[in-house]
Amino acid sequence: MLYHIRMDVNLPPDLDPEVRADLLAREKEYSQKQQREGRWPHLWRVAGEYANISVVDVADHDELHAMLSGLPLFAYMDIEVTPLAGHPNKIAD
Amino acid sequence: MLYHIRMDVNLPPDLDPEVRADLLAREKEYSQKQQREGRWPHLWRVAGEYANISVVDVADHDELHAMLSGLPLFAYMDIEVTPLAGHPNKIAD
Amino acid sequence: MLYHIRMDVNLPPDLDPEVRADLLAREKEYSQKQQREGRWPHLWRVAGEYANISVVDVADHDELHAMLSGLPLFAYMDIEVTPLAGHPNKIAD
Amino acid sequence: MLYHIRMDVNLPPDLDPEVRADLLAREKEYSQKQQREGRWPHLWRVAGEYANISVVDVADHDELHAMLSGLPLFAYMDIEVTPLAGHPNKIAD
Amino acid sequence: MLYHIRMDVNLPPDLDPEVRADLLAREKEYSQKQQREGRWPHLWRVAGEYANISVVDVADHDELHAMLSGLPLFAYMDIEVTPLAGHPNKIAD
Amino acid sequence: MLYHIRMDVNLPPDLDPEVRADLLAREKEYSQKQQREGRWPHLWRVAGEYANISVVDVADHDELHAMLSGLPLFAYMDIEVTPLAGHPNKIAD
Amino acid sequence: MLYHIRMDVNLPPDLDPEVRADLLAREKEYSQKQQREGRWPHLWRVAGEYANISVVDVADHDELHAMLSGLPLFAYMDIEVTPLAGHPNKIAD
Amino acid sequence: MLYHIRMDVNLPPDLDPEVRADLLAREKEYSQKQQREGRWPHLWRVAGEYANISVVDVADHDELHAMLSGLPLFAYMDIEVTPLAGHPNKIAD
Amino acid sequence: MLYHIRMDVNLPPDLDPEVRADLLAREKEYSQKQQREGRWPHLWRVAGEYANISVVDVADHDELHAMLSGLPLFAYMDIEVTPLAGHPNKIAD
Amino acid sequence: MLYHIRMDVNLPPDLDPEVRADLLAREKEYSQKQQREGRWPHLWRVAGEYANISVVDVADHDELHAMLSGLPLFAYMDIEVTPLAGHPNKIAD
Repeated sequence: MLYHIRMDVNLPPDLDPEVRADLLAREKEYSQKQQREGRWPHLWRVAGEYANISVVDVADHDELHAMLSGLPLFAYMDIEVTPLAGHPNKIAD
Repeated sequence: MLYHIRMDVNLPPDLDPEVRADLLAREKEYSQKQQREGRWPHLWRVAGEYANISVVDVADHDELHAMLSGLPLFAYMDIEVTPLAGHPNKIAD
Repeated sequence: MLYHIRMDVNLPPDLDPEVRADLLAREKEYSQKQQREGRWPHLWRVAGEYANISVVDVADHDELHAMLSGLPLFAYMDIEVTPLAGHPNKIAD
Repeated sequence: MLYHIRMDVNLPPDLDPEVRADLLAREKEYSQKQQREGRWPHLWRVAGEYANISVVDVADHDELHAMLSGLPLFAYMDIEVTPLAGHPNKIAD
Repeated sequence: MLYHIRMDVNLPPDLDPEVRADLLAREKEYSQKQQREGRWPHLWRVAGEYANISVVDVADHDELHAMLSGLPLFAYMDIEVTPLAGHPNKIAD
Repeated sequence: MLYHIRMDVNLPPDLDPEVRADLLAREKEYSQKQQREGRWPHLWRVAGEYANISVVDVADHDELHAMLSGLPLFAYMDIEVTPLAGHPNKIAD
Repeated sequence: MLYHIRMDVNLPPDLDPEVRADLLAREKEYSQKQQREGRWPHLWRVAGEYANISVVDVADHDELHAMLSGLPLFAYMDIEVTPLAGHPNKIAD
Repeated sequence: MLYHIRMDVNLPPDLDPEVRADLLAREKEYSQKQQREGRWPHLWRVAGEYANISVVDVADHDELHAMLSGLPLFAYMDIEVTPLAGHPNKIAD
Repeated sequence: MLYHIRMDVNLPPDLDPEVRADLLAREKEYSQKQQREGRWPHLWRVAGEYANISVVDVADHDELHAMLSGLPLFAYMDIEVTPLAGHPNKIAD
Repeated sequence: MLYHIRMDVNLPPDLDPEVRADLLAREKEYSQKQQREGRWPHLWRVAGEYANISVVDVADHDELHAMLSGLPLFAYMDIEVTPLAGHPNKIAD
């Protein structure tokens, strides 16, 4: 099932650079694993902001929460979740 | 270029049924033409609301405005536009 | 799967009384059918407001949208959907 | 009487891990005691966010405040309280 | 039990004067009956706005909803309900 | 003259416990003095939140500001002031 | 006593021109009477908007409400009231 | 002096087409006259919305208000005004 | 030209008392100089809040910015600026 | 393509003065380079606030994000991006 996610990242500007680098590396690794395993089909950068818009594809709400709360940056993010259904005007891909 | 669009539709509940049916038919036709011509790759229904989240792919802001303002439902909609850039963590499709 | 729904009803005060009565009767019938079929386990009135808070239990987002958009009052409501996951502190019922 | 509660938890990301672990353990213990004693019939995780939606069942507002302000995480939370009444469309359980 | 209520009245300026006068008369009669029966101890006008702040005293949420939804102006009002508990610093009256 | 006040208290969770205890003791003492001297007729706890709703009775805006800005917790609070007038439907006490 | 008032006027664009002209004339007459009688020392137009910012000087909240609710445009306005006290840095006029 | 203006147009979808066409024609004529006379150096369409962002150059607030309130669409618009000063980092054109 | 300014001051409660006292002294001195030089005709305290509402009179936006950004408390304040024009109903002083 | 950008700067008041000076110097240098290279045609100070309104001219969203996220102050700013299209009423420069 598809969920639309907006994630706004609020990293403190004075965060220790090493802690920051480690966080971002782990975040990249984590997110790319999810992508490779097909749970994260769409990931875009919101142009001009430290935020992303994603569409994730997981079995249910519990799997969604496990996936998002497992993000290394989870504690630094405001996350907005919107369940997506099929649209009657959508043509077949 | 990709733009993230949220469209919230506010059709008056007491709109003449025929006017409504005609509007929705023309909206469907218009949107499916845009999809077939590759300008509207993603179109999802926000589950539980009369709203959609789309990603459109057009050359520039002017083409975006022409496309959106040409929607038969344009006058009945609140539209929110967010430009999308590539994300550094995104793996190749 | 469980979805938390808040529905705020905005019926025009000057709606024709017969139209209103018919709408509310159909809404009641529709919602009680969903409840009997197990899709609507919780339905509470927000005390003091023409709004309800519900928890519905459906297979996926598409079924959620079909159920909510089928409500006779759908066109008169602001609806907010929140997916619910299991909570680690929840004890077994 | 039933109260709908939304709790958004704002734990500082750099909170001492031991302080954090202790807080969460005490929160779990406290909440499960309330659940066992029948004051907290519903507790769900808002999928994708560090927040929960609960329905608590207590005698009155004072007992509600005592229960919520006694939560170990109380000082770290934004709490929204909505009194719930019976809904005319609700079928008997 | 005490509930703090804010009621913002949105009467259409072009409402038929007789309908308006009748509504306001019935509202006054209804509210004064509630006051005489001890359910509405405090009723103040928000200076400068067509709104009131009240404190009502009823047995529970259901009685609260019955009382508020019975107000002749109910359909024209935005209502905000806040449950009130005792304050530790309050001195005995 | 009556003023409706909402005070939301934002004490940092990691405030030195002694500083906190002293603040709260001085706040209680200050507020009870105002109550005894008739300037603070109503003080309720917003159930579930670290906030209060009060009605204070002072001669004018300057006295109001002196009283509120003198609160030991003043620097930690968001305060909302609403002047209250008599309501035409209010029955005599 | 001084009150800061912001008034946003929402006249329907399709209001009968004669009704509109009459309203505005009566509003002008009413407001200028208040000004001549010293209750309305400051009245400015918010540049670019159909709104004004005023400072009125009346004895108390009740007189404030009587004055504002007596405005011919009262039913068409959103009004925000802010009580003003003396400022410690203000030099004598 | 420069003012940044955002204008959101809210024309009723069911406005008589002739009235609409006349309004838009007069709006165009009015705005182009202001542009020719140097008072409106920048006028952009907010892509995807019936809104514009402008920078106008007028002598003072009164001239600003006269210009904006003279717009044929004035009664149908939400207008936000932001005064612009020189920026220390701006290089000479 | 007149500008309406609202300044909300957010001084950290744990600011070093000497730093605080020095800031406030310099703020008072600065503001009273501006008042004496006729640029700050109106300065009121928002009763109950650490905020002021002012009307300043300066030649243009640049002078406005220079004056406000020169305030010792500038870095600790949220500032809202509203240009004021003459009101058609205003009677001569 | 033109993008309208609003940048609100939130530098901590107690930031080390040298760090601050270095940041601002690098920000100035960076922004003036972009201006000289034609990507930043308009840059205005929001009078009275530590914020700017800009119009930037870049090839696409990716270049926009690269440019904005490269700003030394990026981590301290709230940024709002609005794509700008041509306006039908705009006269040729």
